[in-house]
This record gives sequence, C-alpha cells and structure tokens, in this order.
Amino acid sequence: MNRYFDYAATSPVDPEALEAYVHASTYYYGNAGSLHDAGTKASSLLEHCRNRLGDLLQAESRGIAFTSGGTESNELGLSALMSAGEGNHLIICGGEHSSIHNIAERMKNRGVRVTKTPLLPNGQVDLDHLEKDLCDDTAVVALQHVNGEIGSIQPVEEAVRMAGEYGALIHCDCVQSFGKISLADLGSTVDSLAVSSHKVYGPKGVGAVYIRPELSFQPLTPNVNHENGVRPGTVDVPGVAAFVTAAEKAVTHLDTRAAYTQQLKAVFFEQLTAQGWQLVGDTRHQSVPIAGLMLQGWEGQWMMLEGSRKGYFFSTGTACRVNSQKPSYTLSAMGIGKEAAKSFIRISFSHEHSETDVLDLAHHLNPYLQQRVD
Amino acid sequence: MNRYFDYAATSPVDPEALEAYVHASTYYYGNAGSLHDAGTKASSLLEHCRNRLGDLLQAESRGIAFTSGGTESNELGLSALMSAGEGNHLIICGGEHSSIHNIAERMKNRGVRVTKTPLLPNGQVDLDHLEKDLCDDTAVVALQHVNGEIGSIQPVEEAVRMAGEYGALIHCDCVQSFGKISLADLGSTVDSLAVSSHKVYGPKGVGAVYIRPELSFQPLTPNVNHENGVRPGTVDVPGVAAFVTAAEKAVTHLDTRAAYTQQLKAVFFEQLTAQGWQLVGDTRHQSVPIAGLMLQGWEGQWMMLEGSRKGYFFSTGTACRVNSQKPSYTLSAMGIGKEAAKSFIRISFSHEHSETDVLDLAHHLNPYLQQRVD
Repeated sequence: MNRYFDYAATSPVDPEALEAYVHASTYYYGNAGSLHDAGTKASSLLEHCRNRLGDLLQAESRGIAFTSGGTESNELGLSALMSAGEGNHLIICGGEHSSIHNIAERMKNRGVRVTKTPLLPNGQVDLDHLEKDLCDDTAVVALQHVNGEIGSIQPVEEAVRMAGEYGALIHCDCVQSFGKISLADLGSTVDSLAVSSHKVYGPKGVGAVYIRPELSFQPLTPNVNHENGVRPGTVDVPGVAAFVTAAEKAVTHLDTRAAYTQQLKAVFFEQLTAQGWQLVGDTRHQSVPIAGLMLQGWEGQWMMLEGSRKGYFFSTGTACRVNSQKPSYTLSAMGIGKEAAKSFIRISFSHEHSETDVLDLAHHLNPYLQQRVD
Repeated sequence: MNRYFDYAATSPVDPEALEAYVHASTYYYGNAGSLHDAGTKASSLLEHCRNRLGDLLQAESRGIAFTSGGTESNELGLSALMSAGEGNHLIICGGEHSSIHNIAERMKNRGVRVTKTPLLPNGQVDLDHLEKDLCDDTAVVALQHVNGEIGSIQPVEEAVRMAGEYGALIHCDCVQSFGKISLADLGSTVDSLAVSSHKVYGPKGVGAVYIRPELSFQPLTPNVNHENGVRPGTVDVPGVAAFVTAAEKAVTHLDTRAAYTQQLKAVFFEQLTAQGWQLVGDTRHQSVPIAGLMLQGWEGQWMMLEGSRKGYFFSTGTACRVNSQKPSYTLSAMGIGKEAAKSFIRISFSHEHSETDVLDLAHHLNPYLQQRVD
C-alpha cells in the first residue's frame, strides 16, 4: 500500500533516472568546464540534456541554464527579468511559492516596489486586480503556472497578454506543472520559467531556468563562465542527466498519467464524505494531482501528524514554509481567514498510487469528520 | 592506466558514496522540510550528516548549512560575514577561487571597498601587504586554505590573528584542502569556511558552509526555513549523505593518502626533466596533491589539448574560468606576467594513481621540453 500523498513536496526518484545518475557519475565524471576530453565528454552530455529539455519545454535550449533546484531557478529568472525589464515595479501573484515571495522581499529591501495580486475564490489570480496593478513602471509580473498548495491552474496566457500591454516581462514558476499538465506554448510566450527535478521523479538538488535568449540582462553574479554566464559553480552533470531522463518520461507519459490521476482524484472525492470537507479552489475536475482541503474546526497540523502516526503522509502546505507560523501565502491571497486556514491539508496524488491507495486514504480521512459530528 | 590528472577540477565519485546516494534516494526520499514521518526520516538523516560533518571539520554542527557546492558556500559564507562584520572594507587574497572574486565584484558594485592582497613568489599571501591592507574599516578577510591552481598552503592562522587585531572576520575557502591536508583547528578559529563534495570523491552539486553560530548576520535570502535560515530550497539529502560518506572516508584516510600522494609527487618530479619546467610556488615538498608548472615558450593550452589527444587529462588552471581570456588570478597575484602565465599547466594527483601512472605522465611531458631544446 502506498500511503505517501505528498508528491507535491517531493517524489521518489524514478529507477531509470537513478540508473542514469549512476551511469553518468561513473562514466561522465569530468568537470563540464574542463577543456580536455574528460571535460568535453561531460559537457557534450550536458548539451545533449539541454537540447532534450529544450524540446520538452518547447523553448530554445540556448536559453536554458541548469540550477540547484526550483528555488534557485526562480531567483535567477526573476532577477534576470528585473534587470532586463524597464521599470522599478514588480508584481507577484499572492499565491506564489515562498521562494518568489522571499526574492521579492529582497528586492523590496533594495528599493523595488512590490505589489501582490490576490487570488479569486476559485484559486486563480484576480485578473481584474492584475489589470489595475499593472502600470508603465511595471518591469515584471511573476505568475506561477500551477499553485503548489491547492493545484489551481493560473491564466498565464491572459496575464502574458495583459503584461505585454504595459511592456512588462513575465516569469512563470512551472515547478508544479511541468510533467503534470501540458505547458502548451508557455516555453515560447513567457520571458523566463522555472522547473525542478525532484517534483518529476528526478533527483533533488537539480532544476533549470529558461530565460528568453533575446533578453539583455545582468546576471546575478558577474563574470560567470558556467551555464552561459547565468549560474556559477561546477554543473552537476549526473544530476542533470537523471533529471532530464525523469522529465522526458514524465512528459512522454503526461497524458496517460494525467488522465489516471484525474480518475484517482474522482475516486477519492466520491469516497470522501462530502459534508464538512471543503475543497479549496475550483480544482475538482482538473487533472492537476493536488487537492487542498479544509475541515472546519480541525487543525490541519493535528490531522497531518495523526495521519503520519498511522502511516499516511500528507502535508499542511508547502514544505518550504514548514517552520513558519504564518498562514499559507495561497490561502491568505484568497482572503481565507487565519483560523479557517489552520484547518488546511494538502493531498497530492501520483500515477504511482492505485485506486485502493486513494480509497484507503479517504477511509482514513472520513472518520475525522464523524468524530466531530458525533 | 589512470591518465586523469585533474582531480583538483573534480574527482570521480567513490563507490561507497554512490551506494549511499542510491540508498538514501530509495529509502529517504521525503522532503526534509516535511513534518510527517517520511520527512522527519529524511531530516534525521540530514541532521546525522550535519553532526558527522561537524566532527570532520571540528566545527559546531549547528553552524553548518548544506549547499549546492563550493561556489554557493563561498557566497553564503562571505555574505554572512560582510553582514555580521563591522566596516565596509573587504580584503580578498589575490589567488582566491573565481567564486570569491565574483562575489567581491558584486559587493563592489554595491559600494563595498574591495582590496586584493597579492601573493609572494612562494605562492603564499604576502602577510606584510595584508598587514598594510587591514584597517579599522575592514569587515572581512577572505583567505583560501589551499590555492587551487598551484597548491600553496596559506598562512591562515597568522591571517586570523592579524585580522583579529582589526576586529575583522575571516572566511576560509577550504574546498581544495578539505580531505587532502589537515584543517587543524581552522573549524574553530575562522568565522566561516566552505567545502565542496565533488573534490573529495563525493557527488557534484553538494557542498557545505560553516558560519560561526555566535555571529549575528542577515542571510542572503530573507525568511528562509531550510538549513537554519541560511540557504533556501529543498535539501538534497541523498547528495548530502553521499558527500558525508565520501568526506568521512577522505578524512579517515587523510594521513595515508597524503603520504602516498606526496610520494607520487616526488616520483613525478624525479622523473620530470628538471631543466625548463618551472614549479610555480614553493610546493614541492608539501603533501597537497597539486602542482602548477610553467614551460617557457610553450602554450599551456596547447600542451593541455595535445595531452588530451593522447589521453592525458590535466588543466591550464581552474575549470571555473575556462572560457575566460584573462590570465589566472593566482599567477597574476604572484606578479607573473601574462606571457609567462600562458605556459601554465596544473597537474593534480590522487591516491587513485599508481607510481606507473605518474611516471607515464612525466614521460609524456618530458618530450615537450626536448622538442624545444632540439
């Protein structure tokens, strides 16, 4: 029985990806920055991986830099765009991942004006509000593709169009969407995007940022020779090879996996006692394998720990804010009060689950409600 | 025959470390930031690794944060100290790794006064010069433990004492010394230090920074919940486990390995035609497994490529500056002219080499000289 329902926090490594890691560690161990054959062998593999990822993202591979993960990808993308864009105003969606909030905070400390656009009750960014927030001074809009806590799909295309009217650039955090739903043509419409390996069954510590190659920007660190000057430090070629192996598999099987997890979600919701449990956002019939739930009167933290005691692993939100006492960015941005937000739990599904697994989870969760009702 | 002589650029992964990686990837895949058992299992392993590394560095483990590598470790350490220290003056040794130069450049762009202290002909920092460079406004001195291009051991203890007189903090880049020579009590005397995994037969993409826990500093990114607030992003626990496994092995076998590579160096130099080849710095009788050589009238770049053509892999300096047309920081800091510096090559040895391997390398290198003499 698979009782791990926290795939949005991290996924186990796909065996083929792990095999690629071991193979590359053994046979391609050279420093991709070295010019002798041991180095060029590694850098050839690296460039091969860059091209493969470019295909998967439908983005120009020369704009891709491999990083240490989603957080660094968000940081590099957002910083590049702020330097390339015109203006001193940054708009981030209120439900962005903490890495975006933290970078925005850092920029704010350096004099950038930051606006946070709220979410609608359906979990999508409030486009009317965004329209009002945009101005000629807006350099960049950061809008995630899929929210990591409730799984809502953001109207990125519309935001791109609106931002374009003000000459603003768009950074799109695709960490929770890549390999789960189609990126459609985001790779060619946004100005930068971030992806992470360990959310798509690749190893931890690896990610990538795509920055539109036509943009002229100041890299965060000057004089860098690795990764087209975007990211310093020896590239983890084995990690990259494993990431791209996992990503390729995720994208190749995307339709099948998405249909399957959508079916799992349906089974789960059919079984979950309708009364009491509140699905956060209008995500029930989307294929994103994330469900945010609230159960009034209960503490999510308690449910999570009680679940864990019985072997069920789900979360109370993003693992990147685990020690924070502050309420979830997403729920705050939706205007959900602090008390109600405390009852939040996040379930994330995977193609690795069977129907029995999700039925079992629903059976575990239902009694919480009954205990309250009784 | 092992003809890879670029261990200072990167080393192959130790099989036990790779095994630890695969094991941790399979059984400890949870996000160390998650509070359920799958997460706490991973975070327990992470804390175990932190304690082990603390022992190896003889530093307080609570001051250690795992990073994506030496470059990030240098960045985090140096930034933390500049924020903790008093003053607006940063001194870096002229022979520091490019990551230190680049961070210093970034700080300079933000108004920090940066001084670069030159090296003596023996490859050590000029302490008299350092004494003159220090002033009451000096917040931080960055001095590497071992130079990565010529292998000179820096007088860190003396620099710590001198910096202390001006109330300046010390960051020590130990990337090339950790696991190769004893760190002695650096872990308790410097204010921050950086180490990297892939230089000690661990995986790429992992490193650690130690920042003295008593220091009060502003982390580079605000509101971070991972790694004691020092470094954001999901921690690569499998990578950390593999790194610490390799590091433990390197430190445990340090004396034997160091004696062995010192012997290899002796054999190499006995065999290398004395005439013509110039050893850069006074490093011949040190156990650091790096030798910087110049051969007047020859291009290091050509020798490196010619070597590679014949299967011998050595470098012309650090792999992190490979596309740079500028001369090596180290050679410049020693006052070696641009033309002479062009003839530089770096050989780095390992306990994985046999005597036959190094004799073979010497036999490969000697004819260069003869071709010139004839």
